[in-house]
Amino acid sequence: MNQRLQAFSSWLQQQHSSFALITSSANVFYFSGFWCDPHERLLALLVFPEGEPVLVCPQMEVPRARRAGWEDTVIGYDDSTDPWEEIHRHLQRRNINATIIAVEKHHLSFARFERLSALFPNAQWQDAEEKLRQLRLMKDEEEMKRLRQAAELADRAIEIGVSAIRPGVTELELVAVIEYELKKLGVEGMSFPTTVLTGARTADPHGVPGAATVAPGDFVLFDLGVIVDGYCSDITRTVVCRMASDEQRLIYDTVRRAQQAAIDACRPQIAMGEIDRAARSVIEQAGYGPYFPHRVGHGLGIDIHEYPSLHSTNHEPLVAGMVFTIEPGIYVPAIGGVRIEDDVAVTASGVEVLTSFSKDLIIV
Amino acid sequence: MNQRLQAFSSWLQQQHSSFALITSSANVFYFSGFWCDPHERLLALLVFPEGEPVLVCPQMEVPRARRAGWEDTVIGYDDSTDPWEEIHRHLQRRNINATIIAVEKHHLSFARFERLSALFPNAQWQDAEEKLRQLRLMKDEEEMKRLRQAAELADRAIEIGVSAIRPGVTELELVAVIEYELKKLGVEGMSFPTTVLTGARTADPHGVPGAATVAPGDFVLFDLGVIVDGYCSDITRTVVCRMASDEQRLIYDTVRRAQQAAIDACRPQIAMGEIDRAARSVIEQAGYGPYFPHRVGHGLGIDIHEYPSLHSTNHEPLVAGMVFTIEPGIYVPAIGGVRIEDDVAVTASGVEVLTSFSKDLIIV
Repeated sequence: MNQRLQAFSSWLQQQHSSFALITSSANVFYFSGFWCDPHERLLALLVFPEGEPVLVCPQMEVPRARRAGWEDTVIGYDDSTDPWEEIHRHLQRRNINATIIAVEKHHLSFARFERLSALFPNAQWQDAEEKLRQLRLMKDEEEMKRLRQAAELADRAIEIGVSAIRPGVTELELVAVIEYELKKLGVEGMSFPTTVLTGARTADPHGVPGAATVAPGDFVLFDLGVIVDGYCSDITRTVVCRMASDEQRLIYDTVRRAQQAAIDACRPQIAMGEIDRAARSVIEQAGYGPYFPHRVGHGLGIDIHEYPSLHSTNHEPLVAGMVFTIEPGIYVPAIGGVRIEDDVAVTASGVEVLTSFSKDLIIV
Repeated sequence: MNQRLQAFSSWLQQQHSSFALITSSANVFYFSGFWCDPHERLLALLVFPEGEPVLVCPQMEVPRARRAGWEDTVIGYDDSTDPWEEIHRHLQRRNINATIIAVEKHHLSFARFERLSALFPNAQWQDAEEKLRQLRLMKDEEEMKRLRQAAELADRAIEIGVSAIRPGVTELELVAVIEYELKKLGVEGMSFPTTVLTGARTADPHGVPGAATVAPGDFVLFDLGVIVDGYCSDITRTVVCRMASDEQRLIYDTVRRAQQAAIDACRPQIAMGEIDRAARSVIEQAGYGPYFPHRVGHGLGIDIHEYPSLHSTNHEPLVAGMVFTIEPGIYVPAIGGVRIEDDVAVTASGVEVLTSFSKDLIIV
């Protein structure tokens, strides 16, 4: 049993849980190294306060689980077998009395809860999600390695996108060029749908790329991420086509200073809300306060959004090993928006910035 | 209230349901025309046996819902409002006594079920999923229009992929070329991750594209789909690089005859299992029976896999308006696999084949 499973197992012991049934692909991957999207079929990891964990997956996925390094028991089932019955039998063989069952309450479906309730009619239900988020919060060396690689490829993606800008190119063409070149580099997937926006459309923090074309004087905003061995990066850069107006320069400079202020504020023990406020106060002082409508950043790892959340009212302290984005923005309707986003990791003494594409104002 | 909502509302009346709470993006889209991925936030459609339905979504999504054509009540909520309380208040105002609540049991999470249970402690729970699948089973003219466009773009995608084959190109490069050219055509997204496999790797029906390169004498298999206005296509074609062996020709010819036999068998009233058997018997007679390990096809629409399921033991009859894939395959380990897949719609007299890329053996 690896260290991650051991930590979770100890928690189950403290909680007097009978066992945990983990069903989300991300958490199964975190514990087992095995990534599986089972569609409507059951994927589950049974973890106990004592004794070896058990992986439950479709029979045809068992060889992949073994190749991914899972050495403990596997219950593989085919379409003529009911995996819930198999789980029930396994627990009976181990003499486990299911009185308190830990599950991911936001992931487990009502239908599955009904199946479990029928099998274990006297069970009480415990939510394991908060504990799982806490476990995934601090990244170990192996995770950092993957996050650094993912960040490097995100830098590369921005470089590709910026090089492809010319008046008349559409947002979707820029997305296509970036993803094409990354696929040629062997990238397994993007963290989320790649965003490229141009002109006044950059003022929408949730904009979706379309047929709009780049024109001289436009902001062009790239927001994208790359997955490496299951771990996500997330980067945003904003550049200008041909020439920048004074207002564009002012907005850009303000966001850049705000982003740097937030990075500079990062160190162990500082409250997360302070990071948000460091960026926000630079933007407020420049008079753009109302145009920065979102939190300064979010954790990332196996999921593109995970703990911690860097919003102004979060008083939790930063701890070495946390990895998150720093991404202030200013969005002025009809004019445009600028966002600059890096991925950072908290270290013993401060912060390591994982993404490194230039933050000087680039005029293409 | 549109026809789709009226049909569902009548069903709720027959079932003596108090109301339905629909939470999956696909079903909300089916009824409202509004596509929304709310992440962890609540998206819901409340449908009643009598009276107007209510859409519940984040406040910032309300303008998009209106633009998508939703004219009835919307409960928009921001991050400081609890949407469940809002729903509770709305039901109280309408004097609705929640005794029987219809939900999507495989979609509703345990956590949300707990919230609902706390608000409506005396409610009984009904599964609406089967009824929703039945409603979505027969496609109307608007849906057919989108499915035909999606199929046309899938044909185009195969053409692009086949044109890009040359010895030495990798599977991932072919995926990249296809998706790049489609994005330039303005395609909003793929139905599922595009699959390109080459050589003996085509023998894995669940293979994932990688760095493997095309060599003369290889099968090259493309399996992909395109989304148009929320509706999916799904096509597979298999070609050969440079020269085909006698065995490759035999396998290809067998799959092609099997696929045609299945298409020819399609007409209203015939049992679904017969479509599977029409293809399977051609493959069995050629001696490849053990190498066709999956059902002959699956329904498609808003989801890439929906009703009906064309497997050998399904005795339900085909009905005009159903849309599904026909995709027999033969997979011989170490040699390779061939799959040929079209999308078809059952008509009053037979079948309309939506995808039209050539099924002659193409040697590139």
